[in-house]
Amino acid sequence: MISFFKNLYKTIAKNDPAIHSKWEVILYPFFKVYICYKIGHFFYQHHFYFFARLFSEFGKRRTGIEIHPGATIGKNFFIDHGVGVVIGETTIIGDNVTLYHGVTLGGTGKEKGKRHPTIENNVMIGTGATILGNICIGKNVKVGASAIVLKDVPSNTTVVGIYH
Amino acid sequence: MISFFKNLYKTIAKNDPAIHSKWEVILYPFFKVYICYKIGHFFYQHHFYFFARLFSEFGKRRTGIEIHPGATIGKNFFIDHGVGVVIGETTIIGDNVTLYHGVTLGGTGKEKGKRHPTIENNVMIGTGATILGNICIGKNVKVGASAIVLKDVPSNTTVVGIYH
Amino acid sequence: MISFFKNLYKTIAKNDPAIHSKWEVILYPFFKVYICYKIGHFFYQHHFYFFARLFSEFGKRRTGIEIHPGATIGKNFFIDHGVGVVIGETTIIGDNVTLYHGVTLGGTGKEKGKRHPTIENNVMIGTGATILGNICIGKNVKVGASAIVLKDVPSNTTVVGIYH
Repeated sequence: MISFFKNLYKTIAKNDPAIHSKWEVILYPFFKVYICYKIGHFFYQHHFYFFARLFSEFGKRRTGIEIHPGATIGKNFFIDHGVGVVIGETTIIGDNVTLYHGVTLGGTGKEKGKRHPTIENNVMIGTGATILGNICIGKNVKVGASAIVLKDVPSNTTVVGIYH
Repeated sequence: MISFFKNLYKTIAKNDPAIHSKWEVILYPFFKVYICYKIGHFFYQHHFYFFARLFSEFGKRRTGIEIHPGATIGKNFFIDHGVGVVIGETTIIGDNVTLYHGVTLGGTGKEKGKRHPTIENNVMIGTGATILGNICIGKNVKVGASAIVLKDVPSNTTVVGIYH
Repeated sequence: MISFFKNLYKTIAKNDPAIHSKWEVILYPFFKVYICYKIGHFFYQHHFYFFARLFSEFGKRRTGIEIHPGATIGKNFFIDHGVGVVIGETTIIGDNVTLYHGVTLGGTGKEKGKRHPTIENNVMIGTGATILGNICIGKNVKVGASAIVLKDVPSNTTVVGIYH
């Protein structure tokens, strides 16, 4: 439990140059929403979908960040600012991924089952980027601000504008 | 009254593939904001503008969705996720319209009176799309994610990128 | 103190054509967040960073507008609607500046020290625009909806699309 909070603190302190003191971390929206996600994800895995969504919504109301409790998220995940972020039910996120505010990891409405993106390790997704459908964003990819991504992105590349 | 909630439930259940149980509906942001809009709209029509805005703001604080109480909205309207949606005072929305989060139905700041869009039946507007001015979006139109629309769109078309 | 509220009222009433009555002003998200910013900014200047961020977060939870308490803001500043606005720590904003919802005045992650934009007088920044890095937006500039600005903009110009 303590190591969970320690890791969360380290991730936030590493990612945000605007942090001035240790206790500020508990004011970060990501801190709140990630705890809510963890509880919601636990309920989701045990098929208590109402409670899963209850915690998800609780976190969203306080932060503007909507992480579906069914999403799978790796280590050292971080969302900066965060208002407007939406992460869909079947999204899979690897380790060391950073999102900024306004990012959508969503579906196209045409697929069933796994219908949200897979994000591999060390990916950075800029402000307002929209990634739709069951596609794969490779390792070390950088997605530029407001980019729209509708097909697989190979590893070690940078994507801007509309990529489809 | 009961039929109002029944219709609202049906609309949400039809639109969201991630719903798992009936009672989840009451946790949906659209469920909350639509009830607030309905009350605010009633006050607006009777010229109690302060209370109209009070309910509009109340709904917005809980959901991140800002529907001006003066807007006119048809049947089976649905907003998915919803953070960042702004719907202006003189907007007119037809039946079976679906919006995603981050959509703006706003004004250009140059017009007076009717200065927001008219959306006809069966329109789908993707994440982050911006539709500005007193323009008309025709029937069965699909507006792509992050599109910017500044002039009339004919029926049965799909719009992406900047359309002006 | 009274003149502070009078000025705030005048700024809001001047900028929003949808306002119907005087007291509506206290319901405006900008009204709330600007008061929180002023208190947070006071704490920030006296190096109480925890309390500075506390008020900043308090305002953000109620409005979806994130103004870092370290930002410097001039007279007659106004944010319309506001959900999704992020203003970074070292941003400098001149007089008579208007932002719409979804605007980011952020950093690129590559700079240290002054890493956010400088906005000069009489600038108007449209919905969803993203302005990144230690760049200068000149006097009387208009930035279009969803524009991405990554380099200095000369005075008296209008910017749309990607500007880099």
